[in-house]
Amino acid sequence: MAPRTWRLALVGLGHVGKGLCRLLAERAEQIEADHAARFLLAAVSDLSAGTRVDADGIDPKELLEAAEAADDGHGGRIGERADSLTVIEAAEADILLEVTPTAATGEPAASYCRAAMRRGMHVVTTNKGPPSLHHREMRELAKSHGVQFLFEGAVMSGSPLLSLFRGGLAGAQVRAVTGIVNGTTNYLITEMEAGISFDAALSRAQELGYAEANPRADVDGHDAAAKLAILANVAMGRALTPSDVAREPLTAIDAAQVAAAAAAGRPWRYVASLGNGAATVGPRQLDADHPLAGVRGATNAVTIETEMLGEVTVVGPGAGPRETAFALLADLLEIHRSAA
Amino acid sequence: MAPRTWRLALVGLGHVGKGLCRLLAERAEQIEADHAARFLLAAVSDLSAGTRVDADGIDPKELLEAAEAADDGHGGRIGERADSLTVIEAAEADILLEVTPTAATGEPAASYCRAAMRRGMHVVTTNKGPPSLHHREMRELAKSHGVQFLFEGAVMSGSPLLSLFRGGLAGAQVRAVTGIVNGTTNYLITEMEAGISFDAALSRAQELGYAEANPRADVDGHDAAAKLAILANVAMGRALTPSDVAREPLTAIDAAQVAAAAAAGRPWRYVASLGNGAATVGPRQLDADHPLAGVRGATNAVTIETEMLGEVTVVGPGAGPRETAFALLADLLEIHRSAA
Repeated sequence: MAPRTWRLALVGLGHVGKGLCRLLAERAEQIEADHAARFLLAAVSDLSAGTRVDADGIDPKELLEAAEAADDGHGGRIGERADSLTVIEAAEADILLEVTPTAATGEPAASYCRAAMRRGMHVVTTNKGPPSLHHREMRELAKSHGVQFLFEGAVMSGSPLLSLFRGGLAGAQVRAVTGIVNGTTNYLITEMEAGISFDAALSRAQELGYAEANPRADVDGHDAAAKLAILANVAMGRALTPSDVAREPLTAIDAAQVAAAAAAGRPWRYVASLGNGAATVGPRQLDADHPLAGVRGATNAVTIETEMLGEVTVVGPGAGPRETAFALLADLLEIHRSAA
Repeated sequence: MAPRTWRLALVGLGHVGKGLCRLLAERAEQIEADHAARFLLAAVSDLSAGTRVDADGIDPKELLEAAEAADDGHGGRIGERADSLTVIEAAEADILLEVTPTAATGEPAASYCRAAMRRGMHVVTTNKGPPSLHHREMRELAKSHGVQFLFEGAVMSGSPLLSLFRGGLAGAQVRAVTGIVNGTTNYLITEMEAGISFDAALSRAQELGYAEANPRADVDGHDAAAKLAILANVAMGRALTPSDVAREPLTAIDAAQVAAAAAAGRPWRYVASLGNGAATVGPRQLDADHPLAGVRGATNAVTIETEMLGEVTVVGPGAGPRETAFALLADLLEIHRSAA
């Protein structure tokens, strides 16, 4: 079978964007052999690194080298800086990969997604803004332009979760969803269970790159609330936004409580939960045999309670540039399969 | 969107076949509303219950009532007994649902599957025989006739597992698979961990319907070996059959060992494992933080180790008529989606 070529416009060249370039550099041949699909970088644009456009395909390895080079302070490392929206409007590409960082406003990601779909491009994003704030609008925009709007990487990096709701669980009738969807807070809890103070655990998480310099988005539950809104929209057909989720910070409990509860076999976890109208994020004490009770460190897990099947739990990585880049590949392959 | 009608030939009217009839009786309207698909029973054939054929659709509720009625000893309860192969050869149906019990020879299920595909019918089966003994042949037969050969229910009932390897994990490069794929042995271990003897645990499992009167297929690992062969074929492109799997029975360990190990935090599990050429089934002692260590009772779980993503684990029901009937629905919906 002759491979099909898909031209990509990549917007955002941070950890995830670079992870995708690395994945393409390392695995393009394998992907073509296994799936008869060829993914070509036709345009790359980043606020800081600049913009490069080549409809014949940008070499991802060469791009990575340029992106890693020292900034001379006078312009982008991969090319002149340009407005990414203008780049999307002009790109000769079939698919927008939107991997800019999530902002509370959802912008500029939402504008990028809209512009791409209006031009007939599929959109794959790892940004929590568009699917948590504008899910219904984006879905309808995609439908009316005959394209797909996919965002597996926005919730649990590349772990197969959102794809289940159009795949193996499509007919299962979801009643409730309970998950550990923030790796930072789960890592902090695991450390506190080992007797380490919150502050010491946070410093270590920051050293390891599990927590941001400003940890509020994780510790106060904003990240988990956005992910829960996305799950509500995808798994249960709701129209939730992050502000509809009741949030309680991890700091509502302290390290001594966490350690004592773990020792007593009723561990605390930072749980996002959805069901019966309520959507909440906060520390919860679980029974020892709860499927989420054994989830430790930066690992994520989501338990889906269904009418047809009872409980199904998916455990897997929740973050990481390589794992999130794989989410992009999974969504790209979904677009490729659907077009066959 | 006008619903598409799919005519089904159902062969086998045991627990799973009846579960499917119940599912169709209860949820046909919901399925049509959600998926624009209508599944019609055009032919039903069972060795004992007999055969009924109606291209306009057999009412599943009425069929269930007939099937549950007392046998008069003179013929089938749903109609005259007929050779299921002949029924398949004559059926005006788009899809064969093959749900007869698994036999070591793979027959007559394999013959049913072949006959259906040669007639251009898709095949969905919960029988472990055809996909564990003849996977490559069946896949090629399906390909050459432009139909699908699906068997989600053969490994972990309706829990989404096999669908992952063509869906969310399609590009993930599977390196190893480790799973608890037999609910009976896991239930027995959980009981033994609570201090109950093997014999008492087995009696209780038999009372609850978790174990057969003759428990050898479960306890000696034949069931798990067939499931592992299927996983090898689907997840790793191997060509394994159950006899390629090295088996050790659950009875290689005793109740005292099981209870002591659980108390010491290194629990035994009956594990099916695949990787680096080796395929084995038997009791294994796990670390407390292994994703399978916390899986208890009749629940199943499979950990998939991938190149791209590290470890992903799916936990869910592994048996049950309702859960396995849902696997049939999941595969039917996959056929429906692929045809859109």
